[in-house]
Amino acid sequence: MPSLPDVAPNVAIVGATGAVGVELVRCLEERNFPLASLKLLASSRSAGRQVNFRGQALTVETLGDDSFAGVDLALFSAGSGLSKVYGPKAVAAGAVVVDNSSAFRMDPDCPLVVPEVNAGTLANHRGIVANPNCVAIIAVVPVAPLARAFGLKRLQMATYQAASGAGAAAMEELRASTQAQLEGRPFSPQVLPHPYAFNLFSHNAEVDAESGYNGEELKVIEECRRILDTPELPIGVTCIRVPVLRAHAIAMTLEFDRVVTPEEVREVLAAAPGVRVVDDRARNHFPMPSEAEGQGDVLAGRVRRDLGDPSGRSIALFVAGDQLLKGAALNAVQIAERLVPAAKPQLRSGELVGAS
Amino acid sequence: MPSLPDVAPNVAIVGATGAVGVELVRCLEERNFPLASLKLLASSRSAGRQVNFRGQALTVETLGDDSFAGVDLALFSAGSGLSKVYGPKAVAAGAVVVDNSSAFRMDPDCPLVVPEVNAGTLANHRGIVANPNCVAIIAVVPVAPLARAFGLKRLQMATYQAASGAGAAAMEELRASTQAQLEGRPFSPQVLPHPYAFNLFSHNAEVDAESGYNGEELKVIEECRRILDTPELPIGVTCIRVPVLRAHAIAMTLEFDRVVTPEEVREVLAAAPGVRVVDDRARNHFPMPSEAEGQGDVLAGRVRRDLGDPSGRSIALFVAGDQLLKGAALNAVQIAERLVPAAKPQLRSGELVGAS
Repeated sequence: MPSLPDVAPNVAIVGATGAVGVELVRCLEERNFPLASLKLLASSRSAGRQVNFRGQALTVETLGDDSFAGVDLALFSAGSGLSKVYGPKAVAAGAVVVDNSSAFRMDPDCPLVVPEVNAGTLANHRGIVANPNCVAIIAVVPVAPLARAFGLKRLQMATYQAASGAGAAAMEELRASTQAQLEGRPFSPQVLPHPYAFNLFSHNAEVDAESGYNGEELKVIEECRRILDTPELPIGVTCIRVPVLRAHAIAMTLEFDRVVTPEEVREVLAAAPGVRVVDDRARNHFPMPSEAEGQGDVLAGRVRRDLGDPSGRSIALFVAGDQLLKGAALNAVQIAERLVPAAKPQLRSGELVGAS
Repeated sequence: MPSLPDVAPNVAIVGATGAVGVELVRCLEERNFPLASLKLLASSRSAGRQVNFRGQALTVETLGDDSFAGVDLALFSAGSGLSKVYGPKAVAAGAVVVDNSSAFRMDPDCPLVVPEVNAGTLANHRGIVANPNCVAIIAVVPVAPLARAFGLKRLQMATYQAASGAGAAAMEELRASTQAQLEGRPFSPQVLPHPYAFNLFSHNAEVDAESGYNGEELKVIEECRRILDTPELPIGVTCIRVPVLRAHAIAMTLEFDRVVTPEEVREVLAAAPGVRVVDDRARNHFPMPSEAEGQGDVLAGRVRRDLGDPSGRSIALFVAGDQLLKGAALNAVQIAERLVPAAKPQLRSGELVGAS
């Protein structure tokens, strides 16, 4: 099994020009990730592009079979198909892979990691570590400490998901279709299946004909259970794509093993790594995508008794997190920091990460 | 107690130039509402404006103490403060009032009516009939027939609410702030408390310091209970304002008294007045604001078992309805149709209503 050297590793990013890839480069730079070299890989379409990193212009190279010679750590964000093909090749070449796709998330040999929650499982990796689905990450950061404190019986979620989860082209389609609608021009969606300007729709992942759940919802359920290490936890979720650019929000209710007060919940959240409580009732100030954007923390608020459960055991929450940062790139880099001995002293939790 | 004449009534609209007022005029016209005359009332700021109705230009008049002489039916949509002052004056002048504000919704003397659900309570009116909150209307149209069929134990909702619920100025603020963001210009919100372009936020109604619920959520809970005639029904709700112009959506889970299959639910919804089932799993086609806009029906779909409830008694749904039509103006006009003997033969349920 590959492991990382004690000195600063040689790093590669696969999918370096995508929405998440751009943030991976930025996170490595802003967090002073210790690396000896950085190689940017993408499809031949993007090869030759120049990307700035620590004052140097790096040239994007075409991903190929020999891309991983000398690479110690490969951060993949180029879709599940490419991860399945090139992930094992990178491992064979001696790299440790942190994969942002769904390819290995349910593979028992690949830990599925949110460092604040289950960093301990990293010890079991055999070359590939899976970075979870963005909704699963943003959900478990506040849910895990509450589950630990009070015991979790049921979790119900409705999501408000940004365009970024469908990639940079979807973000551009949201902008372009909105501009067209404001000008009264027609617009035919090319990336997403439905009109997006001032509209929302059930998540675009394929819907399972039998259960009626879409692929995104099934990922969220399976991955939350795996990360929380509660394989039987009943989780209900409705995933909705909303016309927001890059931060997801989730309305959730949590049923605990016992009666829990909002004050107890707020205390646990205030002490939880990676969570920032935003819960100002007097100013009507709660988690919003506009304030989650560019933040490493998941914002959590609207903590209150769930009036839908007369037992008093359920609490309602509203959370928001940057889909491209904690939901993807930042979490991957935080995993890498746990893997790289040289990065360990720099581990910081919950700090701000600037973004455009 | 005022009642309506057997012949076509003289009708007044209070708040005729607001977002809902404009739709009230349109609904009366498109539904061929039988009326002898139509008087349009608004604040002095809007007085003098011309509004087309059935090929005639009507001039908006200033609302005043003597506005209701000779009026048989007054449709109010000018905010709770004006309804409290002028509603009783209209009744004293002999009119029946259908009020779109929250002023009388919990007054036991004022029926709170969604015609598909509880038209029978109209018989108890003493001059004022209350038109419910938009989310409450859009929720109960699909929920009520399910509650009747299977018995409802709990209702959980997360809303996706359009700008229109905050009025025409909020819709314009959504458009203007979005245009500004697309052009990279700064924009200071004037109508809503938070940036709205490509953003969402907890509903702008005041938050109860004690419970943490906002005024919108408390209205939804109280009004759904009253309309469904289930005063103790546990209802949990999170109300979120999303950057959509005029149709609301709701993700909901319903726990019934017994195990219910998605097929049973779909059958009840398919037969329910005012509901159109949009539930095409193969095409990923479900209720969307863009398709709810301009529709009299509430769209309902994503019918599936709630995996958050292992008992099998809970069903998840996603619904969408036009906030200005069924959520406000259309429901008020449908109430008026039940009150006006001359309109009765024209009663139609669930048909399309064109809108801009």
